[in-house]
Amino acid sequence: MRLSKLAEKLQARIEGDGDVEIVGLAPIDEAEPGHLTFVANPKYGALLRSTRASAVLVGPDQDSAGRTVLRTTDPYAAFVHALALFDSRPRPQPGVHPTAAVAESATIGPRAYVGAYAVIGEGAVVGEDACIYPHVVIYPQVRVGERFTAHAGAVVRENVVIGDDVVLQPGVVIGGDGFGFVPVGDDVPVTIPQIGTVEIADHVEVGANTTVDRAAVGATRLERGVKLDNLIMIGHGSRIGAFSMLAGQCGMAGSTKIGSRVMAGGQVGFAGHLTVGDDVRLAAQSGVVRDVAAGATVAGLPAGDVALWRRMVIALSRLPELLRRVRRLEKRLQED
Amino acid sequence: MRLSKLAEKLQARIEGDGDVEIVGLAPIDEAEPGHLTFVANPKYGALLRSTRASAVLVGPDQDSAGRTVLRTTDPYAAFVHALALFDSRPRPQPGVHPTAAVAESATIGPRAYVGAYAVIGEGAVVGEDACIYPHVVIYPQVRVGERFTAHAGAVVRENVVIGDDVVLQPGVVIGGDGFGFVPVGDDVPVTIPQIGTVEIADHVEVGANTTVDRAAVGATRLERGVKLDNLIMIGHGSRIGAFSMLAGQCGMAGSTKIGSRVMAGGQVGFAGHLTVGDDVRLAAQSGVVRDVAAGATVAGLPAGDVALWRRMVIALSRLPELLRRVRRLEKRLQED
Amino acid sequence: MRLSKLAEKLQARIEGDGDVEIVGLAPIDEAEPGHLTFVANPKYGALLRSTRASAVLVGPDQDSAGRTVLRTTDPYAAFVHALALFDSRPRPQPGVHPTAAVAESATIGPRAYVGAYAVIGEGAVVGEDACIYPHVVIYPQVRVGERFTAHAGAVVRENVVIGDDVVLQPGVVIGGDGFGFVPVGDDVPVTIPQIGTVEIADHVEVGANTTVDRAAVGATRLERGVKLDNLIMIGHGSRIGAFSMLAGQCGMAGSTKIGSRVMAGGQVGFAGHLTVGDDVRLAAQSGVVRDVAAGATVAGLPAGDVALWRRMVIALSRLPELLRRVRRLEKRLQED
Repeated sequence: MRLSKLAEKLQARIEGDGDVEIVGLAPIDEAEPGHLTFVANPKYGALLRSTRASAVLVGPDQDSAGRTVLRTTDPYAAFVHALALFDSRPRPQPGVHPTAAVAESATIGPRAYVGAYAVIGEGAVVGEDACIYPHVVIYPQVRVGERFTAHAGAVVRENVVIGDDVVLQPGVVIGGDGFGFVPVGDDVPVTIPQIGTVEIADHVEVGANTTVDRAAVGATRLERGVKLDNLIMIGHGSRIGAFSMLAGQCGMAGSTKIGSRVMAGGQVGFAGHLTVGDDVRLAAQSGVVRDVAAGATVAGLPAGDVALWRRMVIALSRLPELLRRVRRLEKRLQED
Repeated sequence: MRLSKLAEKLQARIEGDGDVEIVGLAPIDEAEPGHLTFVANPKYGALLRSTRASAVLVGPDQDSAGRTVLRTTDPYAAFVHALALFDSRPRPQPGVHPTAAVAESATIGPRAYVGAYAVIGEGAVVGEDACIYPHVVIYPQVRVGERFTAHAGAVVRENVVIGDDVVLQPGVVIGGDGFGFVPVGDDVPVTIPQIGTVEIADHVEVGANTTVDRAAVGATRLERGVKLDNLIMIGHGSRIGAFSMLAGQCGMAGSTKIGSRVMAGGQVGFAGHLTVGDDVRLAAQSGVVRDVAAGATVAGLPAGDVALWRRMVIALSRLPELLRRVRRLEKRLQED
Repeated sequence: MRLSKLAEKLQARIEGDGDVEIVGLAPIDEAEPGHLTFVANPKYGALLRSTRASAVLVGPDQDSAGRTVLRTTDPYAAFVHALALFDSRPRPQPGVHPTAAVAESATIGPRAYVGAYAVIGEGAVVGEDACIYPHVVIYPQVRVGERFTAHAGAVVRENVVIGDDVVLQPGVVIGGDGFGFVPVGDDVPVTIPQIGTVEIADHVEVGANTTVDRAAVGATRLERGVKLDNLIMIGHGSRIGAFSMLAGQCGMAGSTKIGSRVMAGGQVGFAGHLTVGDDVRLAAQSGVVRDVAAGATVAGLPAGDVALWRRMVIALSRLPELLRRVRRLEKRLQED
C-alpha cells in the first residue's frame, strides 16, 4: 500500500515521501525498507535515526530526525489500526468439511466454517459466521453465539453457554470438571460431582491451553470482554468481571470473584472464596490470600499494597546489614 | 424430586414443607425457588434469611430462621450426595463410533464407548465400561483398567499403565518424554532418551491440560486415589503417594517423592530429587527445595514451617519501620 | 544384550561376569536382576551394596563393593548412551494414513509418517522423515524442516517456520495469537491483530502443553537447540538464544530476549521487554523484572544475585527475633 493511502486510512499527516510502497509492519529495531513502524514512547526516539523502516508513526511532539513520518495523536493506536489493515491471514471459507462429525440434532448457523474432524455434539447450537477449526470438540447441549472462533484442539464440555464474538485459542478447555474432592483419610477421596456449568459473555478471548472449570453448582462466569492469556486456570465457581485481563499462567482457585477492569500480571495466584474489587492491579507472581479493595494495586505474597511491598523489598536487601548493625548496638550497650 | 423423597435419600430430617418440588441445587447466594442449598459453616448462617432457596441442608445446631430445612449431621456431605442425585449429564451409550481408529490388535472391553475420531494404537488394552470421548489418542501398547474415562483431547503415550476408575479431563497428557538433556556448552544439548513409562493406580483423577511425564528409566508413579487439578506438571521419575491432592498449576521436577495424603495448594513448586513425607500440607505458591518431614505444614520460598513463615511475614511488613528504629538507636548512641 | 557386548558398545571395562544378560536399565534403588544401573555421584556409592542390578556403570575411582561393574570415565554419559541402545519404542512406519487430511497443495517429504486424522493445511511443507502422530494439526502455509516429530494433539498455526530435527510433545501450541489488547476503560478492550509469526531453529524440543505465541509483528524466535519443558508460556515477540533450557511452567511475557546457554529452573517468570544475557542461571520461581547481565546467577522476586538472596533468606528467618532484640535495645536506652 502506498504510504499516502495508508496515511489517509490512519488519519495521519505525512512528513516526507508519500509515494513509498509499504509492504509490512515491524518493530522499530527489526524493520526493513518497505516497513512501517512506530515510536509511542519518547525514550525510543533515538531508534528513529537507526531504523531501516521506510516510515515511522510518531506523536505530535516527536522530532522526525529527518525520517519520513506519519504524525498522529496516538501513534500506538494508529499502529494497531495498521496491523488490522495488513492482516492477510486467510480466514477459512464457510462450509462444513465432509469429515466433520456434526450431530443431527445440532444447529450450525449460516456462513459457518466447520473444519476437518471437528465434532459437534447432540443438541449443540452454534451461531452464524462461526469459524470452528479442525479438531475442535463441542460436547452436547453447548450453546454458542455469533462469530465464534475456536482454534484446533479447543474443547467445550457439555451444557456450556458462550456469547457472541468469543475467541478460543488452540487447546483451550472450557467446562472441565472442577477440582472437588472430600478427603477421607486413608481411603479414596470422595469426588464431588460438578453438575454446574460455565457461562462466557460476549467478546471474551481465551489464550492457548487455558482451562476454565465448570462449577459444582451454578456457573463459573467470564463477563463481557474478559481477556485471558495462555495456560491460565480458572477454578470452579469463580467469576471475572467485565473487561478484566489476566496475563499468562495466572491461577484462580474456586469461588473467587474478581471485579471489572482488573489487570493481573503473569503467574498471579488467587486463593478461593475471595473478592477482588473493580480496577485492582496485581503485580506478576502476587499471591492473593485476602480480599482486595476496589482500586488497589497489590504485589507480593501475601499480596499487599504495592508501595509497602516496594519498601519491604528495599529493606529486605538491607536486612543482612541490619543484623550486623543490631549486633554492634548490642555489643556497645553491653560494654557500657 | 419432592423434598420429602430427597430427605429420605439423604437420610435427613425435614423441618417444614416436604411437598415442595426440588428441581436443582445452587450455592446459597445464587439459589432460586425450587433449589436446595446448604449451610455447613455457621458463619454463613445469616444467609439463611436472605436465600431464595426452597430448602436448606443444615447441621444439628443451626437455627432454621423459619426456613424449610433438612437437618443432618454433615450438611456438606449430604449436599455432595445430592449433587450425585441431580447429576443429569448424559453418559454416552456404549459402542465404538464408526470413525474411531482402533488398531486391529487393540482390545476394548465390553460396554465401552469409543467416540468419534478417537485413536487406539496397536496392542493397547482398555478395560470394560470405558468412556473414551472423541479425539482421545491412546498410543500403542497402553494398558488401561476398567471404568476409564478420558475426555476429548487427552493423550496417553506408548506403554503407559493405568488402573481402574481413572478419569482424565480434556487435554491431559500422560507419558510425554521427560525433560532430560545434558548441556554441552556451545553445542546442541544431548537428549536423554526417556525409555521408562508412567504407572497410574486406581481411582486417580487428572485435571485439564495437566501433564505427567514418562521416566527416563523405571516409571513415574501416581498411587491409589491421587487427585491432580489442572495444568499441573509431574516430572519424570516422580512419585505421588496414595490419596494426595495437588491444586492447580503445581509443578514437580524429576525424581521427587511425595508421601500419602499430602495436600498442596495452587502453584506449589517442588525441586527434583526430594522426599516429602506423608500428611504434609503445603501453602499455595510454596517452593520446596529441601526434604519435608511427615506431618509438617509448610509455606514460603524456600518452604519452611508455616508458623515461622507467618511470623516472618508479619515481621517483614514492619521491616521499613525497623530500619528507622535502628537508625534512631544508632544516632542516640552516637550522641551519648 | 550380553554385558560383554554392552561394555564394548559403551567403551567401558568389565570387572566381573561379562556373560550376564542385560534386559533393561533402571535407577539404582529400583533395579532388578537383569538390569544395568549407574553410580555417577560418589554419595550414592553406598547403594552399590544393596542394589539388585546385575551390573553397575561406575567412575574410575569408585569402589566396586564386590559387584560386577562397567568402569568408564563418565558413567552418566555412558548410561545415556545405554538408554539409546535400549530404546525399543516403536517408530511408526513411513506412510500417510488414509484418514489424514492433507491439503492438495501441501508437500510432504519422502519417508514421512502422517498418522490418523492428522490435518495438514494448504501450502504447508513438511520435510523428509517427518513423524506426525495422529491428531496433529498443521495450519496452512507452515514450513517444517527434516526429521520433524510432532506428537498427538500438537498444533502449529499458520505461517510458522520450523527448522530440522524439531520435536513437539503432545498438546504443544506453536503460533497462537499473542496477548495484545488495548484497555479502553468501560468498554471491550481493542484486540491487537497478531500478524507476525514464530520461527523455530534446528534441534529445538518443546514439552507437553507448552505454548509459544506468534508475534504482533516480526517473529517470536527459539534459536538452535533450545529445550523447553512442559506447560511453559513464551509470549509474543520474545526470543530465546541457542542451547538455552527452561524448566517446567516458566513464563515469558512479550518482547523479552534471553541469551544463549541460559538455564532456568521451574516456574520462573520473566516480565516483558527485558534482556537476559548469555549463560545466566535462574533459580526456580524467580521473578525477573529487570535486565540480567551475562553470566549472573539470580534468585528471588525481584530476581537478584543469588548469594545476596541466600543471605536475605537466612536473615529473614531471624527477623522475628531481630524485632525482639531491637525492642530490648530501645527499652534499655529508655531506662538509661
